[in-house]
Amino acid sequence: MSKEMLDTLLSRRTVREYTDRKIEKEDLDKILEAGMRASNCGNMQLYSTIVTRKQENKDALCKLHFGQPMVKNADVVLTVCADVNRFHKYCEIRNAKPSYNNFLWFQVSTIDATICSQAMVTAAETLGIGACYLGTVTYMAKPIAELLNLPKHVVPVTTITLGYPATMPELTERLPLEAVVHDEQYQDYTSEDLERLYEDFEKLPQIQKYIKESKQENLAKVFTEVRYPEKDSLTFSKAYMDFAKEQDMM
Amino acid sequence: MSKEMLDTLLSRRTVREYTDRKIEKEDLDKILEAGMRASNCGNMQLYSTIVTRKQENKDALCKLHFGQPMVKNADVVLTVCADVNRFHKYCEIRNAKPSYNNFLWFQVSTIDATICSQAMVTAAETLGIGACYLGTVTYMAKPIAELLNLPKHVVPVTTITLGYPATMPELTERLPLEAVVHDEQYQDYTSEDLERLYEDFEKLPQIQKYIKESKQENLAKVFTEVRYPEKDSLTFSKAYMDFAKEQDMM
Repeated sequence: MSKEMLDTLLSRRTVREYTDRKIEKEDLDKILEAGMRASNCGNMQLYSTIVTRKQENKDALCKLHFGQPMVKNADVVLTVCADVNRFHKYCEIRNAKPSYNNFLWFQVSTIDATICSQAMVTAAETLGIGACYLGTVTYMAKPIAELLNLPKHVVPVTTITLGYPATMPELTERLPLEAVVHDEQYQDYTSEDLERLYEDFEKLPQIQKYIKESKQENLAKVFTEVRYPEKDSLTFSKAYMDFAKEQDMM
Repeated sequence: MSKEMLDTLLSRRTVREYTDRKIEKEDLDKILEAGMRASNCGNMQLYSTIVTRKQENKDALCKLHFGQPMVKNADVVLTVCADVNRFHKYCEIRNAKPSYNNFLWFQVSTIDATICSQAMVTAAETLGIGACYLGTVTYMAKPIAELLNLPKHVVPVTTITLGYPATMPELTERLPLEAVVHDEQYQDYTSEDLERLYEDFEKLPQIQKYIKESKQENLAKVFTEVRYPEKDSLTFSKAYMDFAKEQDMM
């Protein structure tokens, strides 16, 4: 039993293409409940999830996610938010003085929203439902928040698209375990370490193809020149921080 | 099968008391691998996990976690970090210009480290191993980073203690699902909504006991006066942000 469950975790794939099959309300509720059962700081539940199922709303969200087709093609889109609004208001009606509008609690609520997210993704996957995370919500936090009517003290952290898999992609390659795990103390990486750790990864046919299609000389440059160029990072970084400040979360 | 797996997610508990039984190396590796199999942004794997098993190191970590006994009593302590150092250095040896030292990437790597963390926790729980998250790592990020030898571009995000359960606590109460889930758009909470959503929660005998022991008049005040008073929030908030800046992650 436990072996089978572990295998589900070890063989999972991100699913970006979905069939027309709808997710039953009962299953969606189980997924949402699994998120709530995961750990959270002080049991304050400093997160909220916005469920988008109406096609017109998915279409509007899709535009804000740079047109990524998963958003309009998924049966369900979840926008998971760091939310200190609910607890802040609860403190106010109990005559207690809240102090959650600072960087510490933005981080804590971001972490709790993410723990909740991953529990939902795993729950979906155990039900045979495919999931995909979209980081673009951090780039477009403000317009997405406006669309979803997010009040002060709420900032979107991640977006998850859910649907039954139309295609099941290959297992994605990862670095060897030793690349991301440190025994007792962090051992910083020498150039030789990095050459060794990235060697097999860089040689993969799909990575070679990806580099060629991106017209770059190596994998690192695909990231720095094409996917996440500095100017975009700085623009989106400023926009996300400005929005967090505007929401009184910093 | 899927139902049984889902039940594991829906009935999980945070485990803070452990037996002396050791976690097999093979099982620990599966847990760490499950973390790596979870989704991450662009497959850059912007996280690192420091594994602490030596008792002297657990004792030292325990002190920095305000003496919380889980840290010294757990068989394994995992400190999961947002890590843009590895990828930054990889870009440098490939003559690519990295731009990961800003708020956007601090958030992305924090989210990815947390997704990895929750996949590890679930993997542990499927193996019958208990887990507990410790948020105190964010309060004490700098001294913990020094102890673990974390270089520039690495900031600890969360700590997880792992061990076989000595006791299995009751299932923790949560707010009703409708309190944290919004249909299509965020519906902000009125005072009446909050009274209704918190009603059952506040009435629980364990919550009443907790309020009484904390010598407070209500649950909200337990949080604002005892657990997370404003002065501590502001102190730890400043310390965490200062450390993130010092690590060139903001």
